[in-house]
Amino acid sequence: MVAVFFWSRTTPERRRQFYALHPPRSRYRYNPVMTHKLTSLGILLSGRGSNMQAIVRACESGELPATVAIVVSNRIDAAGVAWTRERGIECRVLPHRDYEGRDAHDRAIVDELREAGVEWVCLAGYMRLLSPVFVTAFHNRILNIHPSLLPSFPGLDAQAQAHGHGVRWTGCTVHLVDTELDHGPIVEQTAVPVLSGDTVEDLEHRILLEEHPTYVRALKQLLQRRWTLQGRRLIWLD
Amino acid sequence: MVAVFFWSRTTPERRRQFYALHPPRSRYRYNPVMTHKLTSLGILLSGRGSNMQAIVRACESGELPATVAIVVSNRIDAAGVAWTRERGIECRVLPHRDYEGRDAHDRAIVDELREAGVEWVCLAGYMRLLSPVFVTAFHNRILNIHPSLLPSFPGLDAQAQAHGHGVRWTGCTVHLVDTELDHGPIVEQTAVPVLSGDTVEDLEHRILLEEHPTYVRALKQLLQRRWTLQGRRLIWLD
Repeated sequence: MVAVFFWSRTTPERRRQFYALHPPRSRYRYNPVMTHKLTSLGILLSGRGSNMQAIVRACESGELPATVAIVVSNRIDAAGVAWTRERGIECRVLPHRDYEGRDAHDRAIVDELREAGVEWVCLAGYMRLLSPVFVTAFHNRILNIHPSLLPSFPGLDAQAQAHGHGVRWTGCTVHLVDTELDHGPIVEQTAVPVLSGDTVEDLEHRILLEEHPTYVRALKQLLQRRWTLQGRRLIWLD
Repeated sequence: MVAVFFWSRTTPERRRQFYALHPPRSRYRYNPVMTHKLTSLGILLSGRGSNMQAIVRACESGELPATVAIVVSNRIDAAGVAWTRERGIECRVLPHRDYEGRDAHDRAIVDELREAGVEWVCLAGYMRLLSPVFVTAFHNRILNIHPSLLPSFPGLDAQAQAHGHGVRWTGCTVHLVDTELDHGPIVEQTAVPVLSGDTVEDLEHRILLEEHPTYVRALKQLLQRRWTLQGRRLIWLD
């Protein structure tokens, strides 16, 4: 309230002086009272990156208090790379074959992310397991989305696994990433029904429709709410 | 339509003659057109048997086209035994310690069920694995309910397992029983949310509320609809 009072008494000339002393950078969004820092995101992908597109759109619309600082792909032919570049978002391609082993590759990616000032990393169809090098560098600041209700059906082709198992409910899971495959603490899940007569493609499509809002919701809550980990349970404190 | 026509032309006297010739037995329910045979159920329990109570009530209300022919417990002190006897339902107690090994015990139970004319077996908190003797005797005619979205969290304390794992969705699963623990083809599942701040007891209670209607719905569909198994997928044909 004190800040509002003083700001309302400020002359236009003094405001100009203030902005001259504190020039707005792109990572900050100004409002009359205080500056809201936007969290810098780095996104890793290996394919189309439809979840990356959902996150970019949520940042642009202001739904997420964040900005996508850099996108990294391990494949030059990933469709997500072209989409990102068209949109003018910084994008680097680091093919894993150019590096000696997983650690060297992961260290190069971490360097790129650090240089771009990334605070949170989002995996969007990134088809490689992260090494301890990476997980330690962004400890509990890496998110992944998986198209099943974990711990059911980790690994590849989760939708086909669920379909073949004959479950009536599956879904998608956003979780913090550790060095095990599809394993870390769960942030958010959405349940999706499997209908009689569904093909695997029907199911993939129905889950994908839920993945985008689920990923954005999980990220938004992590950035805006207070949370802690009890064992592998992620608990909201507010 | 022909049957309806003739029945509507029948005099009360002729109806009395018909019922004298075809006396209604308890396992048959008459309607003016045709007789609907009620499926004979056998229920196995080791404890309170709240799911048994739900099935008995659904039979009594006519929601299930079935009748509970016999209840078998492996524990004399099971609360479900007293409840069943108060209600006048046939109940046998076969303590597993009285038999030499699982096969002998299961064979004794199968004999009891066969003698009572049981067609479908429902496990309601029966805390023993079934031997191949039992599973073969009632092949794909044994149902179980488990308080998780299988294949997640099989075995004991499924609700506590789910709570400790930090999932956002769990539920209950009705499945056909095979010789593996909580494993056979899934008939019906209900998804139940885990809320922030839930204790294990909160979660157990919320899941239990869904177990009763889920079990009845699964059984009703198996008895009334056409279905088949493709691998381990149970598919409705209508």
